[in-house]
Amino acid sequence: MLKPWIEAQARLVEVAAGRAPADMVIRGGQWVNVHTREVLPGQDIAIADGRVACVLHDASANIGPETQVIEAEGRYMVPGLIDAHMHVESGMLTPAGFAAAVIPHGTTTIMHDPHEIANVMGLEGVRLMRDESLIQPITMLTQMPSCAPSAPGLETTGHPITAGEVAQAMGWDGVIGLGEMMNFPAVSAGDPAMLSEIAATRAAGKTVGGHYASPDLGRAFSAYVAGGAADDHETVSEAQAVARVRQGMGAMMRLGSAWHDVQAQITAITQRGLDPAGFMLCTDDSHAGTLVHDGHMDRVVRHAVDCGCDPLVAIQMATINTARHFGVERELGSITPGRRADVILTSDLRALPVEMVVAQGRLVAEGGRLLVDCPRIDWPDSARNSVHLGRVLTAADFRVPAEGREADVRVIGVIENQAPTRALTATLPIRDGEVVPEGVERIALVERHKGTGGVVNAFVSGFGYQGRMAVASTVAHDSHHMIVVGTCGENMAAASGRLAELGGGITVFRDGAELAHVALPIAGLMSDRPAAEVAEAAEAVNRAIRDCGCTLNNAIMQHVLLALVVIPELRISDLGLVDVTRFEICDVVMASR
Amino acid sequence: MLKPWIEAQARLVEVAAGRAPADMVIRGGQWVNVHTREVLPGQDIAIADGRVACVLHDASANIGPETQVIEAEGRYMVPGLIDAHMHVESGMLTPAGFAAAVIPHGTTTIMHDPHEIANVMGLEGVRLMRDESLIQPITMLTQMPSCAPSAPGLETTGHPITAGEVAQAMGWDGVIGLGEMMNFPAVSAGDPAMLSEIAATRAAGKTVGGHYASPDLGRAFSAYVAGGAADDHETVSEAQAVARVRQGMGAMMRLGSAWHDVQAQITAITQRGLDPAGFMLCTDDSHAGTLVHDGHMDRVVRHAVDCGCDPLVAIQMATINTARHFGVERELGSITPGRRADVILTSDLRALPVEMVVAQGRLVAEGGRLLVDCPRIDWPDSARNSVHLGRVLTAADFRVPAEGREADVRVIGVIENQAPTRALTATLPIRDGEVVPEGVERIALVERHKGTGGVVNAFVSGFGYQGRMAVASTVAHDSHHMIVVGTCGENMAAASGRLAELGGGITVFRDGAELAHVALPIAGLMSDRPAAEVAEAAEAVNRAIRDCGCTLNNAIMQHVLLALVVIPELRISDLGLVDVTRFEICDVVMASR
Repeated sequence: MLKPWIEAQARLVEVAAGRAPADMVIRGGQWVNVHTREVLPGQDIAIADGRVACVLHDASANIGPETQVIEAEGRYMVPGLIDAHMHVESGMLTPAGFAAAVIPHGTTTIMHDPHEIANVMGLEGVRLMRDESLIQPITMLTQMPSCAPSAPGLETTGHPITAGEVAQAMGWDGVIGLGEMMNFPAVSAGDPAMLSEIAATRAAGKTVGGHYASPDLGRAFSAYVAGGAADDHETVSEAQAVARVRQGMGAMMRLGSAWHDVQAQITAITQRGLDPAGFMLCTDDSHAGTLVHDGHMDRVVRHAVDCGCDPLVAIQMATINTARHFGVERELGSITPGRRADVILTSDLRALPVEMVVAQGRLVAEGGRLLVDCPRIDWPDSARNSVHLGRVLTAADFRVPAEGREADVRVIGVIENQAPTRALTATLPIRDGEVVPEGVERIALVERHKGTGGVVNAFVSGFGYQGRMAVASTVAHDSHHMIVVGTCGENMAAASGRLAELGGGITVFRDGAELAHVALPIAGLMSDRPAAEVAEAAEAVNRAIRDCGCTLNNAIMQHVLLALVVIPELRISDLGLVDVTRFEICDVVMASR
Repeated sequence: MLKPWIEAQARLVEVAAGRAPADMVIRGGQWVNVHTREVLPGQDIAIADGRVACVLHDASANIGPETQVIEAEGRYMVPGLIDAHMHVESGMLTPAGFAAAVIPHGTTTIMHDPHEIANVMGLEGVRLMRDESLIQPITMLTQMPSCAPSAPGLETTGHPITAGEVAQAMGWDGVIGLGEMMNFPAVSAGDPAMLSEIAATRAAGKTVGGHYASPDLGRAFSAYVAGGAADDHETVSEAQAVARVRQGMGAMMRLGSAWHDVQAQITAITQRGLDPAGFMLCTDDSHAGTLVHDGHMDRVVRHAVDCGCDPLVAIQMATINTARHFGVERELGSITPGRRADVILTSDLRALPVEMVVAQGRLVAEGGRLLVDCPRIDWPDSARNSVHLGRVLTAADFRVPAEGREADVRVIGVIENQAPTRALTATLPIRDGEVVPEGVERIALVERHKGTGGVVNAFVSGFGYQGRMAVASTVAHDSHHMIVVGTCGENMAAASGRLAELGGGITVFRDGAELAHVALPIAGLMSDRPAAEVAEAAEAVNRAIRDCGCTLNNAIMQHVLLALVVIPELRISDLGLVDVTRFEICDVVMASR
């Protein structure tokens, strides 16, 4: 474990003075200096106790018999990259699996908000994520989730987060601040519970993550800013990003697996020439496949450069700017004395091949290969046993009952490549006291936190599923019950039963048999397998979904967002079908005759 | 008193939302945005509870019957200026007097290191300065002095500062960090006491002020940086400043009354084009006359612009950069929601006339006139009665005894316009058992903290005094005993007696009568009169000194630095004559015959 700076101070002075050998010397590189925004050739870095002792022209005096010497051979020495905001669970990996996946890409610091597990397990889940984060070979700091449930009154989470719990978590080691305050209407309205979460964070001297997902830059925005959020990663246009920075917030430009928000915003720097100090880069959500095939923060920096950004500015936005924003610039974010020795060696600042990664003074990856262990905690039963259906579901549980000949029903309309849904209506036949989903699919929200046995049924369209099949998932933003979509009650029942057996995950059933699954036994959200395996399983699930006739680009993502009752227009929750334009529960069957 | 942000939060949201009136609206100005480095015309600022609630195009909705409206009339709205490092005592004013002098110049935040009073009164003096600082209408934050005595073993202060006291002060409200760690050889050498002061500061999450007054950028510098200092204001060249910033320190460029270090360093930004984020502006030491006639931080910003700096960058270096450096950027340093409403109105960003000053939401100055009270604490007897000579001194106390006909003596040689002195020698006649100062002046260091009655006598040259006269001062850096320079023992005795009577100050005697004085009854360092009066008294002292034949440009400054036993070559202390090239006490009389 890395010693606190205070305990390393005396040795750092001895090494820097040239009176003692270093643990590691990186020799003869080009120092990418994010403080001055310069590249300085011919530099050595001497490292002791996991921290930079000094950077100078010649550290020979620090090379003793035990000193590990890394020859930079004229390559660039870039500070390890920082992800300013993200959710580990989006990779379907635990912190250990995530760290293992991103270390070879040069990420050495992650600010992560375990919002998903908080919805399932409450504060205990946050603590477990924090615990596993703290033992990684890189720096993973936790943002305490602020909004669980995301939509109080419209859904029931496993454990609601309270303002008192936020205050409690602010005292924890490894908690860097508050996770995205997404209940922006409540903040703007002056809601005392939301304001007090922010106040508790500020009282602890920590950073309040923001999330203002609205194009309105009028009074509602002003009020949100006054509420105390320090940053925002939900901006999608230059004007929105600039508005944040002008108001003293940090703008976090996002390139996730599905978010592509850098290109539209980086013109604030590349064309308007604004001071880049208030801008940062982040991923928000990365799927395992993205991590395995495309990269992580290296991908974001590379993309920013492709968008015309000066490589040194892009690197600043992924290092020192973020460190300053979170008040940890004495601890990390640059290759300077006292900071954690987080260094990437690369031979090209534009293509940014990550050739070697040093984290906290250890060589942790080389040529894309992880060289160290990313330890796992022993996840307790409360995490591994989180799917509680209360009973065995049968086909009869997946019916929308109605009397008469035909019914007018509401249908959730999936829109290709977009997160919002449409509130559609359809007139469907009634047979055997049940609405028959002709031309639409069935959707069910199965309660899985408290074992109530509750199943809410409705209709969805847009997946294009054919035959007798079902897809079920315990990843079901944000309250993470179970979402089952299918054409047939028997397969829906079988799929839900299978997830109960797996302890969570995503499964595809056809004709009573499983075609593919990803097991997510930890809180029903995360796998304890390596990223490559998870990516492969997720790809198999995607293939199975396509085999069932679905033509959507990203069917899994569409599926898992169908319960996200903060995004319009129509969603499903454990409390019923939700009209997200009016924020109220509505009937599936509007009329029947 | 300003409420903490947490207590203001709910009201700020109401005002920002447009649901409640503001306390003040500044209407129709050009917003100097130090986050984006832009000027945005046509903006209103709504202020509540001393803080910015919102900045937007039209704050009409916030104007109620009680709202104070200030018409900016298209002028620039600049964040109040921050002095990144300085010593209040250098103005011979207490914090209240200093605040009153600088508020009309647009200074709204001061980071001040009460190093001088700490030498006289120890931690109690620091606490008193902190107490008066905290009740000012502007933000005055205290840096806990780190090095008293400056030169242990070579001088005796009133109260030495210990590492334990540093740790204690870090827990105090209003203490922003550690004052300049000037014992740089000790830090580089790994001295545990100095390292532990730094560590205590870091443990409290506060900022460690640096002071590395050496051109050596080799291993000694590396070791000093590794020791943990976060900034330096002692740099005098571009190379030195750039070296600090590259190593992750802040470079504070200084324009004091006697320090003119901006011009040589600002080329790092104006010519090398380095990122200005790591650079700040400060004054370090300002005399009352400078404050009254030339200004304070407005003068520094103006000078930076005169040196070719973009006005917006110069303003950043006196606002947001400094706020970020000290970790208070959520609290001040920009005109953005939640921050203290510190605003200057000016019609020209280059000439920077300070037309109106709002501090913490109050109109505090207009057209150079102070509009508010700067309250004083009731300075206790321990501060007001700090000159303890132990006895009445007579002419006989100011003799250098010797046997024989003539003596070879050491002479402190004052160098025009420079702080270092020369170690000169002279052969002087002996009469009546005493060395006669022919062609040189007498100098005496009179112990004044403990009333020991101790007087150390030596010789000085360079002042050019004529006739029977003496100048005495209880400002006597850094341990602040009493320095008496003169041609005649009787006048020296009279001058020392006069200062005992005044409780400290500077006095000029000729032929047994006082020509002029500045009374500094608080710790023998500060006046409780307004800056203009102090400046006038100091000017009268200067005139009296010139009347006594002195031709030096800055005789008072030369005088008060003669005991500064950290600057070569020869100085005087309560322990004797000090050879500052060897750091040892030496004899005044080297030989006599």
